[in-house]
Amino acid sequence: MIIIMKPNASSEAVEKVTNLIQSKGLQVHLSKGDEVTIVGVVGDKTRLHGSNIEISDGVDKIVNVTESYKLVNKKFHPENSVIPVGNTVIGPGTLTVMAGPCAIENHDQLLSSAYAVKKSGATFLRGGAYKPRTSPYSFQGLEEEGLKYMKEAREATGLNIICEVTSLRAMETAVKYVDMLQIGARNMQNFELLKEVGKSGIPVLLKRGLAATIDEWLNAAEYIISEGNPNIVLCERGIRTYETATRNTLDISAIPVIRTKSHLPILVDPSHATGVRAYVEPLSKAAVAVGADGLMIEVHPCPSCALSDGPQSLTFEQFDTLMKDLKPYMDLAGRK
Amino acid sequence: MIIIMKPNASSEAVEKVTNLIQSKGLQVHLSKGDEVTIVGVVGDKTRLHGSNIEISDGVDKIVNVTESYKLVNKKFHPENSVIPVGNTVIGPGTLTVMAGPCAIENHDQLLSSAYAVKKSGATFLRGGAYKPRTSPYSFQGLEEEGLKYMKEAREATGLNIICEVTSLRAMETAVKYVDMLQIGARNMQNFELLKEVGKSGIPVLLKRGLAATIDEWLNAAEYIISEGNPNIVLCERGIRTYETATRNTLDISAIPVIRTKSHLPILVDPSHATGVRAYVEPLSKAAVAVGADGLMIEVHPCPSCALSDGPQSLTFEQFDTLMKDLKPYMDLAGRK
Amino acid sequence: MIIIMKPNASSEAVEKVTNLIQSKGLQVHLSKGDEVTIVGVVGDKTRLHGSNIEISDGVDKIVNVTESYKLVNKKFHPENSVIPVGNTVIGPGTLTVMAGPCAIENHDQLLSSAYAVKKSGATFLRGGAYKPRTSPYSFQGLEEEGLKYMKEAREATGLNIICEVTSLRAMETAVKYVDMLQIGARNMQNFELLKEVGKSGIPVLLKRGLAATIDEWLNAAEYIISEGNPNIVLCERGIRTYETATRNTLDISAIPVIRTKSHLPILVDPSHATGVRAYVEPLSKAAVAVGADGLMIEVHPCPSCALSDGPQSLTFEQFDTLMKDLKPYMDLAGRK
Amino acid sequence: MIIIMKPNASSEAVEKVTNLIQSKGLQVHLSKGDEVTIVGVVGDKTRLHGSNIEISDGVDKIVNVTESYKLVNKKFHPENSVIPVGNTVIGPGTLTVMAGPCAIENHDQLLSSAYAVKKSGATFLRGGAYKPRTSPYSFQGLEEEGLKYMKEAREATGLNIICEVTSLRAMETAVKYVDMLQIGARNMQNFELLKEVGKSGIPVLLKRGLAATIDEWLNAAEYIISEGNPNIVLCERGIRTYETATRNTLDISAIPVIRTKSHLPILVDPSHATGVRAYVEPLSKAAVAVGADGLMIEVHPCPSCALSDGPQSLTFEQFDTLMKDLKPYMDLAGRK
Repeated sequence: MIIIMKPNASSEAVEKVTNLIQSKGLQVHLSKGDEVTIVGVVGDKTRLHGSNIEISDGVDKIVNVTESYKLVNKKFHPENSVIPVGNTVIGPGTLTVMAGPCAIENHDQLLSSAYAVKKSGATFLRGGAYKPRTSPYSFQGLEEEGLKYMKEAREATGLNIICEVTSLRAMETAVKYVDMLQIGARNMQNFELLKEVGKSGIPVLLKRGLAATIDEWLNAAEYIISEGNPNIVLCERGIRTYETATRNTLDISAIPVIRTKSHLPILVDPSHATGVRAYVEPLSKAAVAVGADGLMIEVHPCPSCALSDGPQSLTFEQFDTLMKDLKPYMDLAGRK
Repeated sequence: MIIIMKPNASSEAVEKVTNLIQSKGLQVHLSKGDEVTIVGVVGDKTRLHGSNIEISDGVDKIVNVTESYKLVNKKFHPENSVIPVGNTVIGPGTLTVMAGPCAIENHDQLLSSAYAVKKSGATFLRGGAYKPRTSPYSFQGLEEEGLKYMKEAREATGLNIICEVTSLRAMETAVKYVDMLQIGARNMQNFELLKEVGKSGIPVLLKRGLAATIDEWLNAAEYIISEGNPNIVLCERGIRTYETATRNTLDISAIPVIRTKSHLPILVDPSHATGVRAYVEPLSKAAVAVGADGLMIEVHPCPSCALSDGPQSLTFEQFDTLMKDLKPYMDLAGRK
Repeated sequence: MIIIMKPNASSEAVEKVTNLIQSKGLQVHLSKGDEVTIVGVVGDKTRLHGSNIEISDGVDKIVNVTESYKLVNKKFHPENSVIPVGNTVIGPGTLTVMAGPCAIENHDQLLSSAYAVKKSGATFLRGGAYKPRTSPYSFQGLEEEGLKYMKEAREATGLNIICEVTSLRAMETAVKYVDMLQIGARNMQNFELLKEVGKSGIPVLLKRGLAATIDEWLNAAEYIISEGNPNIVLCERGIRTYETATRNTLDISAIPVIRTKSHLPILVDPSHATGVRAYVEPLSKAAVAVGADGLMIEVHPCPSCALSDGPQSLTFEQFDTLMKDLKPYMDLAGRK
Repeated sequence: MIIIMKPNASSEAVEKVTNLIQSKGLQVHLSKGDEVTIVGVVGDKTRLHGSNIEISDGVDKIVNVTESYKLVNKKFHPENSVIPVGNTVIGPGTLTVMAGPCAIENHDQLLSSAYAVKKSGATFLRGGAYKPRTSPYSFQGLEEEGLKYMKEAREATGLNIICEVTSLRAMETAVKYVDMLQIGARNMQNFELLKEVGKSGIPVLLKRGLAATIDEWLNAAEYIISEGNPNIVLCERGIRTYETATRNTLDISAIPVIRTKSHLPILVDPSHATGVRAYVEPLSKAAVAVGADGLMIEVHPCPSCALSDGPQSLTFEQFDTLMKDLKPYMDLAGRK
C-alpha cells in the first residue's frame, strides 16, 4: 500500500500517518519528492482495516499495490487450474461446449434438445429452471420439475448438466440434481449465495456481473474459494455499455486479462452477450481463437416458440453447423 | 407493440406475421411505406408471449409502445404516493433524512450516532448489520446483534430505523426489528428477495442497481408491488460510468425522470454516489433543489475509525452544519 | 511517479529500473515489501518521456502521483479565477446565464430571442452559426451570416455573444464578431483547434467531451492556457452512459470535483445534458445549488418550429419563469 | 417514422399531428389501440425537418424506422465494397495488415520498421506524423518531415502508406505523400475534416470514436461519402467503458454488426484497443476469426524507447511470429 500526501501536507501530517502505521506493527518507507511525499507501507495491510488513512489530514490518495483476492490469484498459483465436473474436466487443452435452451419449458423440449446437442458434440446440457426476469410478468421457470427433466436428460444422454440458481432455496434443491451450479450475472455479488455455494463444494460457473470490473469478478470468485470450494469456472457474457446495437458488449479482452490474473478457466457466452442469433457463430469462432476454455450457447428446438430468449437461440441444425465450423479453430487452438 | 419489417420483406412474410397476431385474437393495423411496412398490434400483448415475432422471416425489429411495469407506473396512478413508515410518512411536501453509520460496529457507536442525528433533525437512523463487501476479507457486519442495537436506538430516540437485507435469512430476522427494509444496489435484481419483501408488506427502500436503467429499476419495484406491497421508496445512489473521479456518477436527472414515470417517492444518497465526504454537502443541496423527497447520508462518530466507508462519512458536527444549511433549500422546495 | 514491481521480479530487474531512472538524473527511493518492491521516483519526471519503464522486465505498473496539467491546476493556483468577458466577468460570486437558440435560423428568430433573454436577465446570447450534426443531411448552420445577426443582436441589446466554432476556418471568421468562443463536446480533443484558440487570446467556453474524463478535460484546457490564453470557462453538458432515459447523463458531481482540482469557473448546460425541456428547470436549480458559476440554456421563440434541438428548448415565457424561480437559489448560493 | 401518442392524448391532439403531417404532403396511417394511438408516417420524412412533432401536445415519443445514413447502408448497396488503395485492395477475401510505429520519430526508426513489417507480410506502413496527445506536454509528431520519411519508406519497400490527419492543414500536406488518410477516434465527429476528406477523394480509414455508437460512426462515414468519396474503410479500436483492465474495451461484436448494416470493409486495431502488448496476439486471432477485413498493429524497433505507446507496440520479432501464427486463421477465414 502506498499513501500519497498532498503537496502542501505539513510534516506533522506526515508524521501522524507514519505513527499510525507503525502503531499497527507495520514498517514505513518515506519518499520525499519535490512536489509530494509518498509513504510506502510494508507488512500485512489487513492490520490497517478501519484505519481510514485516506481521510487523515494531508493525505491525497491511497494506491493499493496488491490485489485483495488471493486464492484465485495467478501470482500465488501460477499453474492454470483444471476443474473436474461430472464425467469430464474444464481447463487447458479442452474446449467445453455447454448448450441447451434458455429456459426449460417442458419434458419434450428439454429431452429433444439434450439429444440434439449431444449428437453435435456438446458435453454439457444447460437449461434454466429458475429464471431471473426483468419483469415479474414474464415466465419465471419450472423450478424443481425442470430439474427432474434435466436429470432424466443426463441419464438418457450422458451429458453433464448445469443450471442457474438464484437463491439459497433454489440451490438447496438444485444440488440434488445437477453437476454444476451457475451463478448468473445478476447474482455475481449476491454474497450470501456465493458463500453457500462455496460451502457446498459443488462445481460452479460464475458469470460476470453486468457492470462488474474484472477485479470485482475475481473477488466474487474469492468468496466461493475462501469457503473451501476451488471448483470455479468463469464465464464472460457481455458487459453493459452505451452501445445498443447488441444487448450487451462482449468484452473479449477479458479472456487474456483473466489469463494473466487468475488460474481459473474461462468460458464465453455469445448468446447472452449479443442477444442476436446471427452473431453467435462469428463470436464463437473469436472466442476459441482468443483462447477461451469453452462456450455456452443457447439452442432451442423451435426458437420462434421459445418462452425466453428465442431471438438469440440457435436451431439444432444451426448448432450442428456451428460445431462443425468450430472444429478447425479448436484444432488451431490446441483444444479438444 | 409495433413490428417493423425489413425493406425487402416479402408479402408472404408480412402475411405470416399478421396471421400469427390475429391467431392470438389481436388486431392488426398495416402501414405500407415507400421503404418499409409497419405492423401495429392492438390488444393485450401478453397473449404474444413466446411468439418471438422478432425472428420471423422479414421482421427487422419490434418496438414496445407500453411499459412492462404497470402498478408503479404514473400513467395508471397519476397521484404521487405518500408512503407511511414507522411514525412518519415519505413523499410530497416532506424531506426525509436518513442518517447514520455505514456499518453498525458496536453499541456505543450506534447509540451515539442515533442521538446525534436525531438532534440535528434526521427522522431515520440508518446502519448496516449485513454488509455486502466486494472482498470476503472485509468486515461483514454484526448481523442480529446489530439489529438489537438498532431497536434500542429507536426506543431511546424515537427515530425510525432502516437496515439493508441481503438475503431471505437476513430479511426474516430484520423484520422483527426495523421499520423499513433496504434493498441495496447489488440486490436490485435479486428477484427472490424482491418477491419476499413484497409478501412481507413492510416498507422498503429500493436502491438503484449500479448499472440499472430506470426502466429496470421500476420493473424491480413492480416485483415488490405485484406481491401486494405498495410501500416502496426509490433511492438514487449513483451509477457506474467511465469516470473515476467519483466512486459512482450521481444520476441527478433520474429524479425528474422518475417523477414523470412513476408515483413513487425518491431519495438521493450522495455518500455512496461520490465516496467523498467533501462532495456530500453540495450534492445534498442539489438533491433538494432538484426535487428529491429525501436524503440518505452516512454519519459516523469518528470517520477515521470507521470499519466501512469512513472516507465518505460526515462527523456529527459536519452533519449538523449540513442540516442547518439545507433548511433554506427545503423551504424553497416547499418541503419540511 | 511510483513503479510497482511484480512479486517475482528479480533483483536484476529492480536494478535495471533504478539504473535507468538514475541515468536520467533522477533520484530513487526503494521500498521492499513482503510481496512486492516499490520504486519511488523523485525529480522532474518529464525526463523519463520515452523511457517506457512499464515494459521493462519485472515491472507490474506505474502510478502517476502528479497531474499532467499544471497551469489550470488548483494546486499551483489556489485562488478561483475570475474570467473577464465582454462587459462582464465569470467566476466566484456571479451566476452567468447564457441563453438563446441552438441554431441561428434567421434574423428575426435571433433578434427576438436576444430581446427576450435580455429582458429575463441573461447576460449572454448563445446561438449556433456552425452546427456539428450527426447526419450530413441535417441543417448545418448559417455560418458568417448568422454571426452578423449575432453582432446586430449585441448592438441592439448589450448582451455578450458566444458562438461555437468547429474548425480553424470558422474560428478565424468568428473572432471578428463574438465576445467568447465555444469549443463543443465533439471538439474537446481537437487539439489543433485548441492551440489556435489558445493563441487567439479570446475567452473560450470549453465544453466537456461526451466521454471525456475530468482529467482529460483539464488537459484540454491546459492546451489552451499553455498557448497563452488563461480566459477559460468550463461547461459540463452531460456524459455518455448506458442510460437512455435522458440524451446524456448530467455529471453534477463534476462541479465540486472541478472545484477541488482547478481554479477555472464552470457552467452547466441542462438543455444538452437531458434533451428534454421539462427537465431543464429542476436541473438548473440543482446546478445553482451545487455551486456552478452559471448556466447555458436553449431558448427559442417557437420550439416546435426549431431547426435543431426544439424538444429541449424553452419558450420565452418558460425561460422568464425559470429566471424568476432561480433568483432565490442564487441568493442562497451567494451569487448574482 | 412512427409517432406514439400518450395514453391520455385527446382526439384534438391526434388530429393536430395528423394535419401537420398531411400539410407536408405525407400520408398518415392511424392505429388506435386500447392504451395508445400510433401514427405512422409514409413518404419522404425529410419534409418534416424542423417540425418537432415530439413536442406537440399529446405526443409521447417518435420512433425512427429508417436509418439516417443512406449511401453506406447495406440496405441500398447489398454487395460488400472492395476499396482500392495504392497498389492493393481492401475488402472481402483479403486480410490487410497495416503495421508500424505509433509515432514517426526519425528516419532510421521508420525505415527499419518499414523493412521489417514488409518482410513479415504487412502491405501497409502506418506511422503518425501528427499526434493527438492528451497532454500538451507530450511529443506532438514530426509533421511534414515525418511524411517525407513515409514517402521514402514507400519507395524503398513498395508498402502503401497511411497517416492520421488531425486538421485541414495536416490533410492538405498529407495528401501529397500518402496512399490513405486516417481519421482518428478523437476526430470521428470533426465534421469539417470529414467533409474535406470527402472532397479529396483519397481513400480514408475512419476509426470509431471513443464513445461513438455504430450508428454515429456510419453517419460519420456518410459525411465522407456524401461529398463524393466512396473509398472508406472502418476501423474498430475499442470503446470507452467502466472497465480499466484494458485501455479501452474492444467491441468485437461491432464487426458482425457492421457487416449487417453496411457494405464498407472493417479493420480491427488491437494495439489501441487494449494498450497492452501481450493482448495483441490473442485479439488479432479473434479479429480474423470474427471476420474482420484486416488489422492495424503497432510495431517498433525498440518499444522500450518509443516516444508514444511503447507498452502496446510489438518488436519486429514478435510481429513476425504473429504474422506466421495468423496465417492458418486467415486460411480458415478464406482470406489472403
